[in-house]
Amino acid sequence: MTDLKHKILAMAKDDLEAIEEALLLNLKPHLDLVAQVAGHLLFSGGKRLRPLLMILSARICGYKMHDDKKLSTVFEYLHTASLLHDDIVDGASIRRGRPVAHSIWGNPTVVLVGDFLLARSLSIAAETGFINAIKIIAKITENMSQGEIQQLMKKGDFDFSEKEYMEVIRRKTSVLIQGACSVGALIANAPKKKETALSEYGLNLGYAFQMADDLLDYTSDTDVLGKEVGADLKEGKLTLPVIFALNNADSKDRSFMEKVIKNKDFSVHNFKALVELLVKYGGIQYTKKMAVKYVDRAKEAIYLFKNSETKELLLDVADYVLVRRF
Amino acid sequence: MTDLKHKILAMAKDDLEAIEEALLLNLKPHLDLVAQVAGHLLFSGGKRLRPLLMILSARICGYKMHDDKKLSTVFEYLHTASLLHDDIVDGASIRRGRPVAHSIWGNPTVVLVGDFLLARSLSIAAETGFINAIKIIAKITENMSQGEIQQLMKKGDFDFSEKEYMEVIRRKTSVLIQGACSVGALIANAPKKKETALSEYGLNLGYAFQMADDLLDYTSDTDVLGKEVGADLKEGKLTLPVIFALNNADSKDRSFMEKVIKNKDFSVHNFKALVELLVKYGGIQYTKKMAVKYVDRAKEAIYLFKNSETKELLLDVADYVLVRRF
Repeated sequence: MTDLKHKILAMAKDDLEAIEEALLLNLKPHLDLVAQVAGHLLFSGGKRLRPLLMILSARICGYKMHDDKKLSTVFEYLHTASLLHDDIVDGASIRRGRPVAHSIWGNPTVVLVGDFLLARSLSIAAETGFINAIKIIAKITENMSQGEIQQLMKKGDFDFSEKEYMEVIRRKTSVLIQGACSVGALIANAPKKKETALSEYGLNLGYAFQMADDLLDYTSDTDVLGKEVGADLKEGKLTLPVIFALNNADSKDRSFMEKVIKNKDFSVHNFKALVELLVKYGGIQYTKKMAVKYVDRAKEAIYLFKNSETKELLLDVADYVLVRRF
Repeated sequence: MTDLKHKILAMAKDDLEAIEEALLLNLKPHLDLVAQVAGHLLFSGGKRLRPLLMILSARICGYKMHDDKKLSTVFEYLHTASLLHDDIVDGASIRRGRPVAHSIWGNPTVVLVGDFLLARSLSIAAETGFINAIKIIAKITENMSQGEIQQLMKKGDFDFSEKEYMEVIRRKTSVLIQGACSVGALIANAPKKKETALSEYGLNLGYAFQMADDLLDYTSDTDVLGKEVGADLKEGKLTLPVIFALNNADSKDRSFMEKVIKNKDFSVHNFKALVELLVKYGGIQYTKKMAVKYVDRAKEAIYLFKNSETKELLLDVADYVLVRRF
């Protein structure tokens, strides 16, 4: 474990425990099967990044009430719902080192459990009564489903541009993290300036987070990653390292890369050759550079808050995105 | 077309047109594909029962503002989202006489478009700002997903009881219709007594509606039904006509019925023999009787409202459930 991870876990210990408790307490399924299926992914070692960011955002704006833990579960439930449906959509087989839920319980059950988690999120938001938070949360889900659809439409499309990639990851990843931060500010009745700052922090962190995640598919081992390396490419999902390299490769290398990607059952040998081309044409380096840029933007966005332990933690979480696993 | 249907369509003409317009106006997808996939089912001749009931419930409580049309779309979008996911879960092939969406666009896209419609519903509810309505709407979705899961768990289970059947149809069908009526009363600031009356009307109508629907699977032709006759049984989905007949059949007939149901590729001949047993053991008659009972309860529930065109329409809609297609 990195030192930074140690430090974050130590500083956020109480919050993370409270989040874990709230996640168990607020799921409230009517059926044991729902608890089992949802629990399989929900309690499989997720980092609780989204609920933690909501709680920290509220705290840095002076929040002193007790709705934050409960409301924070919304962001983990939404995230889990989205992962359940995405793993079906992507035909994934492993997640966090475990077989995906639909390989155990079948697609039909998992589609419905995802629906339950979506609905549960919105019920919890409604129970807390913050109408502006509810609006943000409903919009997040609209964006996430559309981001996923857009990504699905563009699978195997070699003209998928960096701009389109940014639009897809904004919808499917950034708006949820952004929303968690905004809602934190909202429930603390923060002035507009602070809410905007935290919203910007979340948005930029979201971009960085997804870029780092997309890099891992090319720079990690299956054991470390907890899912298959090269899985994105096997689905024809083009991410920034590939988009950048394709745009900069000479025609011979580009056509080799296209051939590997089109042949979804590429060999380990060909995959390694492709990763070498990602390095040769700067796709890996460029993506790292962009991730760093967005982390910097995230950190700059909260510059206006005065120093505190909470601010330090928000800055550390931003840095952690970069050292996570590459 | 029956006289009653004619009468309802004439009386509700303006409302139905306004609903149609609102459904187009409020979908607001970012992607054309979403509009296309959602529209395939959304604009395929649905009866708009749920939005109509919300509008009539508001009106009978004296509602005079202009949020009702927009808010009513929530109940059609939720219904559509649920049908999209259910058709995947059930492996259905035809709906309203057309190929199901997932047979055209594939399961992944349709799962995500269903998610979009779910999210869109809750966004619209949030936009109108009625917090109590939002709470009801989020709870409806929780119930619907759990009702579907429970039904899925019980497929092929010959011990599925009438009580469990009632619980499943309450969650998957009745709560949505009940919610539409409750929300109508809520936005009209109706006194508790009127809200409860309309909630009871919707709940009981929902039961009757689902029973009538389940009957059609045994009493209709594929052409009239718009989907395959016997489809429920092919999925192992036991509904009231079958549950009642199984419980009352002698052991020889019961084991014949079980054999037909277990063999999902039963012949037309065997299906007809099974339907004859449903008649012989009173399963068809009992289900009709129960549907009538719940329609009567629905009508009795709104007894307290003074006579008006709106009340007449609510009573007619209740009766229509029974003559719909059997």
